[in-house]
Amino acid sequence: MMMLADAVEDKRSKMTVSIVTIGDEILIGQITDTNAVWIAKKMTLLGMHVQEMVSISDTPEHITDTLDRLLGRTDLVLMTGGLGPTKDDLTKQTLNDYFGGKLVVDEEVLATITEFFNKRGRSMIDSNRRQAEVPDVCRALPNDHGTAPGMWFERDRTIVVSMPGVPYEMKPMVTDQVIPALKSRLEIPTLVHRTIMTYAVPESYLAEMISEWENKLPACMKLAYLPRPGIVRLRLTVRGECAEKANEHLDRQTALLKEKIGDHIFGYDDQPIEQVIGDVLREKGLTVSTAESCTGGNIARLLTSVPGSSAYFKGTLVAYSNEVKTAPLGVDADLIEQYGAVSREVVEAMAKGAMQLLGSDASMATSGIAGPDGGTEEKPVGLVWIAVASGNRVHSREFRFGGHRELVIEQSSIMAIGLLYKLLHNKLEG
Amino acid sequence: MMMLADAVEDKRSKMTVSIVTIGDEILIGQITDTNAVWIAKKMTLLGMHVQEMVSISDTPEHITDTLDRLLGRTDLVLMTGGLGPTKDDLTKQTLNDYFGGKLVVDEEVLATITEFFNKRGRSMIDSNRRQAEVPDVCRALPNDHGTAPGMWFERDRTIVVSMPGVPYEMKPMVTDQVIPALKSRLEIPTLVHRTIMTYAVPESYLAEMISEWENKLPACMKLAYLPRPGIVRLRLTVRGECAEKANEHLDRQTALLKEKIGDHIFGYDDQPIEQVIGDVLREKGLTVSTAESCTGGNIARLLTSVPGSSAYFKGTLVAYSNEVKTAPLGVDADLIEQYGAVSREVVEAMAKGAMQLLGSDASMATSGIAGPDGGTEEKPVGLVWIAVASGNRVHSREFRFGGHRELVIEQSSIMAIGLLYKLLHNKLEG
Repeated sequence: MMMLADAVEDKRSKMTVSIVTIGDEILIGQITDTNAVWIAKKMTLLGMHVQEMVSISDTPEHITDTLDRLLGRTDLVLMTGGLGPTKDDLTKQTLNDYFGGKLVVDEEVLATITEFFNKRGRSMIDSNRRQAEVPDVCRALPNDHGTAPGMWFERDRTIVVSMPGVPYEMKPMVTDQVIPALKSRLEIPTLVHRTIMTYAVPESYLAEMISEWENKLPACMKLAYLPRPGIVRLRLTVRGECAEKANEHLDRQTALLKEKIGDHIFGYDDQPIEQVIGDVLREKGLTVSTAESCTGGNIARLLTSVPGSSAYFKGTLVAYSNEVKTAPLGVDADLIEQYGAVSREVVEAMAKGAMQLLGSDASMATSGIAGPDGGTEEKPVGLVWIAVASGNRVHSREFRFGGHRELVIEQSSIMAIGLLYKLLHNKLEG
Repeated sequence: MMMLADAVEDKRSKMTVSIVTIGDEILIGQITDTNAVWIAKKMTLLGMHVQEMVSISDTPEHITDTLDRLLGRTDLVLMTGGLGPTKDDLTKQTLNDYFGGKLVVDEEVLATITEFFNKRGRSMIDSNRRQAEVPDVCRALPNDHGTAPGMWFERDRTIVVSMPGVPYEMKPMVTDQVIPALKSRLEIPTLVHRTIMTYAVPESYLAEMISEWENKLPACMKLAYLPRPGIVRLRLTVRGECAEKANEHLDRQTALLKEKIGDHIFGYDDQPIEQVIGDVLREKGLTVSTAESCTGGNIARLLTSVPGSSAYFKGTLVAYSNEVKTAPLGVDADLIEQYGAVSREVVEAMAKGAMQLLGSDASMATSGIAGPDGGTEEKPVGLVWIAVASGNRVHSREFRFGGHRELVIEQSSIMAIGLLYKLLHNKLEG
């Protein structure tokens, strides 16, 4: 929220960036451009102002028109795409003509490409070898993960960098080559960021809980709220003389923030909660299982998305029908009869049943109405009971999540993991 | 693949569109612009050529510069965003000034907004009422799902349409108002599309299997390959005089295609495979369960993402550890010892165990190495055994999927559902 206001407020004092994506797949709506948003975030974190993101097709006219328009009006143009080995990729030739150069083989690039093929035991064909040719008016950026080199041009106070469109080739090029070069070349202020990951509190409540702290933040420090389903990330940014001092500032403010909302912090710097809980389980030598009704296996999917999760994750029972809740999970049929499947009694029995059935030390269980159908006045869509258990401690809580089916499932899953995190840190009764 | 070539080939004869997204959240890399790609796809399907997609901030200078640049050079400008009720949303005022109008209350829009609030039992405040004011030089497009109306301007042979940025407000405005208006206003050729959904064959093999058929396609018909993990969509497009004739053409070609690859077609027109299998199960009155190892609950998540899936989905056992495979699932420990957990014998026993444990008529089971660790020379990362069962029929098959963990999990899940689809249609031995 504040981030936006700040971005608008001081954009005039910042270096400006334009991001250009080249390729027809995006223009026909076949794929979403994820490169531009990734680059925009990196540049914003560097303290630059992204003034435009544009997608155009890989034709000399469009590329030339766009450069004509941007040169002299922006400090930096970052381009991706159009550098493939086939004939319909015209970006390199167009840039060469635009900047008045001649294509020559770059020995460093040729060595990188040769090594790329040697490592994979494949032989190079002519079109690959031609990828080592770059305009003699640019600085070539070797590509450690593919065959198309990046190119760095300068004219009229504008830097133009052309990079491959494949994300896993482009990203390391930005991180390892472009950003360090920009830092040494331009006067970029030192910006240091820290992201505090919170859960279990909606953005508006969180803002209220920390408003006093927020109002006292020193002028050199900015706060951004970055919400996701079930999670709010708080990003603190310091503009300072040196990284060391900035980090001292951040340490101090983080400590103050912890006093206010320590119970809702699960980690830092964009670590996902499913990875954090995995670290906690591994550290404590505990195993975990889940019994899922309304989340339909989504907690299991999150846990197993972490490489190495087989060390602590035993398994899951997705119990969509009442018979599955009773027979394998061992939930008393009378409980379901008396309280309904979406109830404290049943979800706690599910959590205990999962530990028993799947032989784990801890567990999570969910039972709720994800919608769009199945809601009643008493038990509406979005009502979810979540239980977490460890050894003989069981804790359960009722939630009313808003939004459509997908959002109810995602919020419930994150909340279940968050509650287990709390239980394992003895921050919950039960 | 062909789609791209075609798009480039005849773009000169097409009407051109530029898509403009307004808002700082996108420029700072906080959110990905999904509106532009959605609109681009719609316009491409209409037979228009998207020449540019651009994101700019909500400032009068940027909006004015962009309009100056595009007017007279493109047939249609579709803008989204910047129309909120707060003071930092400047797009309406800027468009009003640009086109030289005066803001006046539009009675139809006011009625729509009043109804919007009445329905929700909320009272209107001044800023909401002001949203009914539109420039008197535009045609207002009432918003059935929110409070900001769209605006339709024309100048220099260019149509400029401004729409709200909230996707569920913008999408029906495009579908129900903008596209019909464009069709009646511009000479748009009749394009009719049909998407044939295939699975279990990689794009390159599929292309070979249908090359003879593809080469004989009539000139009025175009084919595009649209791959997704585990699935290839084939989109046929006919440019014809009337929709009826076009559909006859499509029926004929689809029938011919079915002769070639009928075993690999699971549906039409972007219906997801998890929905198709749900329809089949419901129709046959069968229930289903899954026993998942390497897919970690992802098949369950896909199945339960479909509203109403509780009618046929009984549950899932995610068996990450061998003990879970043996005890609740009832897989013989000797089988695991003798053949290893990733084997035909174990995956078939898992499929049978799931039906038994979860009381279902049919089942799917997976066991494999999703990576990045855990692979050996004999059983490398990407090796996955999948079994499907229905009654006393069991079928299993070995796969070697490429790519990273996430991709192995997604491909395995889609393939398991695809194999069950085949089994239920008696297209598999077993």
